[in-house]
Amino acid sequence: MKEKISIGILGLGTVGSGVVKVLKNHDEVEIKKIAVKDITKKRNIDGLNKSMLTDNPQTIVEDTDIQVVIEVIGGINPAFDLIKTAIKNKKHIVTANKELVAKHGAELFELAKKNNVTILYEAAVAGGIPIIMPLKLSLGANNISKIAGILNGTTNYILTKMDTEGREFEDVLKEAQDLGYAEADPSGDVKGFDAAYKIAILSSIAFDKKVDVNNVYIGGIDNITSTDISFAKEFGYKIKLVAIGQMANDNKIDVRVHPMLVPKTHLLYGVDDVVNAVMVEGDAVGKVMFSGPGAGDLPTASSVVGDLLCIVGDLLLDNTPIPLMRCKQRNGAKHLEIDNTRNKYFIRVNAKNVPGVLGDLGTICGNNNINLYNIVQKGVLEDGSARVVLLTEAALEKDLNKAIEEMNKKESINKVQNIIRVMD
Amino acid sequence: MKEKISIGILGLGTVGSGVVKVLKNHDEVEIKKIAVKDITKKRNIDGLNKSMLTDNPQTIVEDTDIQVVIEVIGGINPAFDLIKTAIKNKKHIVTANKELVAKHGAELFELAKKNNVTILYEAAVAGGIPIIMPLKLSLGANNISKIAGILNGTTNYILTKMDTEGREFEDVLKEAQDLGYAEADPSGDVKGFDAAYKIAILSSIAFDKKVDVNNVYIGGIDNITSTDISFAKEFGYKIKLVAIGQMANDNKIDVRVHPMLVPKTHLLYGVDDVVNAVMVEGDAVGKVMFSGPGAGDLPTASSVVGDLLCIVGDLLLDNTPIPLMRCKQRNGAKHLEIDNTRNKYFIRVNAKNVPGVLGDLGTICGNNNINLYNIVQKGVLEDGSARVVLLTEAALEKDLNKAIEEMNKKESINKVQNIIRVMD
Repeated sequence: MKEKISIGILGLGTVGSGVVKVLKNHDEVEIKKIAVKDITKKRNIDGLNKSMLTDNPQTIVEDTDIQVVIEVIGGINPAFDLIKTAIKNKKHIVTANKELVAKHGAELFELAKKNNVTILYEAAVAGGIPIIMPLKLSLGANNISKIAGILNGTTNYILTKMDTEGREFEDVLKEAQDLGYAEADPSGDVKGFDAAYKIAILSSIAFDKKVDVNNVYIGGIDNITSTDISFAKEFGYKIKLVAIGQMANDNKIDVRVHPMLVPKTHLLYGVDDVVNAVMVEGDAVGKVMFSGPGAGDLPTASSVVGDLLCIVGDLLLDNTPIPLMRCKQRNGAKHLEIDNTRNKYFIRVNAKNVPGVLGDLGTICGNNNINLYNIVQKGVLEDGSARVVLLTEAALEKDLNKAIEEMNKKESINKVQNIIRVMD
Repeated sequence: MKEKISIGILGLGTVGSGVVKVLKNHDEVEIKKIAVKDITKKRNIDGLNKSMLTDNPQTIVEDTDIQVVIEVIGGINPAFDLIKTAIKNKKHIVTANKELVAKHGAELFELAKKNNVTILYEAAVAGGIPIIMPLKLSLGANNISKIAGILNGTTNYILTKMDTEGREFEDVLKEAQDLGYAEADPSGDVKGFDAAYKIAILSSIAFDKKVDVNNVYIGGIDNITSTDISFAKEFGYKIKLVAIGQMANDNKIDVRVHPMLVPKTHLLYGVDDVVNAVMVEGDAVGKVMFSGPGAGDLPTASSVVGDLLCIVGDLLLDNTPIPLMRCKQRNGAKHLEIDNTRNKYFIRVNAKNVPGVLGDLGTICGNNNINLYNIVQKGVLEDGSARVVLLTEAALEKDLNKAIEEMNKKESINKVQNIIRVMD
């Protein structure tokens, strides 16, 4: 039995610094080296010894003493190559890199299997919330039918502010950027890419298939207005950026990220601000939910070090830490195309203030197999046009698109201004 | 590498039947024997083969083919002896037995360690919700400072019904018994023992100490009235049976179960009906919450089989499944006595309808170092007495007890009718 396991860390940004701090309390782990861009940079991190630093990451992934490599650089390059080299050198991997796992996970898992090492990546999804390990292990007995989550803190913060303060997207985004909650280029968050990486990863575990993130349908929140939010509120909903992965017919999976109206009765309704949450539905367990901080240095480090300690626990006993990986992902997933999904819809229309508008809208919907659940005309705008909101029952997306096209051509209707899917 | 692992199951009640059903989907496990009381009893369980049944549990715990024993009998006898024999015969254990783990866990863990086998017990706390494994593994990097949970579905159902329908405890309890949500002898649930076993187990893991369930302070919900609930509601609270384990000063732990007023802003506020939830606070992660079904055949079986598959995954690779246990529990916990805890309180008083009552109450509190946050007199009852409710700031429990004693002696006060602690 060993006493200590030597590790190397690639990257010393926000998460890397958190990892060093958290590891101070764990004697069984010895940080041998940390790869940074600039060795001379002043750093004030509790537990950091300057002699650990190197600006040559290659020396870490090739170091024969190091048994586990933690990758917290992020992005594809150079993380991908470094991890591949580390695996070939028989090192176990802990990574927080959602983009890399979502885009190249299958390849990495295969390489890891061939080299008899494990890759853990709890921190890649939902920061500090334990979700990957519970999905693989505690819920391992279930056939998972659905995962639905709020997986991006930045957009949840923006939508919460828009809801509670009645402000517009651009205005809140700017504030979030000033506060450091949103990046200077916010597209990764607000256009839904970040959440898409995460739901691709969760879906690949839950359904045990290779999920290509390019097949994930992605919609952002940048077209959500305070008008949409206040109508939604009136009907008893909040608008949230929801990531969904679910089994569909013919063994297809339906994986997507887009804004949705979430009803008061839903578990995700109360998940506000920067909080993340994941709801999992399985044949044995029913519905369980996990919520907590989806980002931040220490919460993310909590997941990274949690993974590390799992591997270290096995290594100290000369065990092979393979079972924790438990991802076969033998087959590529077949995806249900968004056109063939069935959804309820919230449709906001700008119409002429003339008799027959509601009738026209109802007729178009009816002709396209869409049952209306609610149709409301709300006052007349300054320019004399009328604002109409429709809530539909579940309908086929391609029928909906046809109806929208017909609405936009209709004399009495100026324009369909927004279409947002509605959660059950 | 093996292909299949042979297991035995002790007990075929609600949970046992669920386990058999769930195991139908898992080829890597072969149920060799199931111990039941009555072999001749008619059973209609998908996946059950009559030839598996035995009425001699001893043949399971001594069977040399069987590598893992699932115990779902419940209670101390004969489960305790059977598990001990199974461990001595080098079998790994999966149990759903909260009472046994809470009362004799430390002894069993030691015996298991000596025999190089593991004991997993995810199902013993919060049914289908993954909490033990995430606490041990994913959150393993944290120093846990607090766990707070709603761990008993029956009492949560009763309190929710009392709250939403304005009914009294006895009335709702009877209905819950008729519906099968509460047992004929409901004391294990309503007096808080069930939740106490569970918080003792969680605290022993979180704080890595032997927690003796006899040192857990326990209060039930049988003295909660609809009057308490409606006052609580008026102040913005729900009353819930809360289980708490937290670190206190001098390395003591404060572990208890009792009703509390939960504020709207708290994560547990929205946890209603039979749902269970556990909030965990750690130095790195901050606050995370887990919620879902706390009971039921299939949810509980989800946790049992989840544990089983963890062990099986290791056994198939000839690994030693020890690390999953990861409970050192070297030292017995020192408990903070309830008298020395600090809490906010809700105090409901029946007073004479005379001038000076509020002054008397205020003076008594002030003399005992208790700051009042709110004091309300609400109408006059039919018998001419007045109803007064006090909300205090955090105060020492022994000061509170002294104040209550003085109130009960005071001329202007008929009786202190209920005292309920208030969550922050």
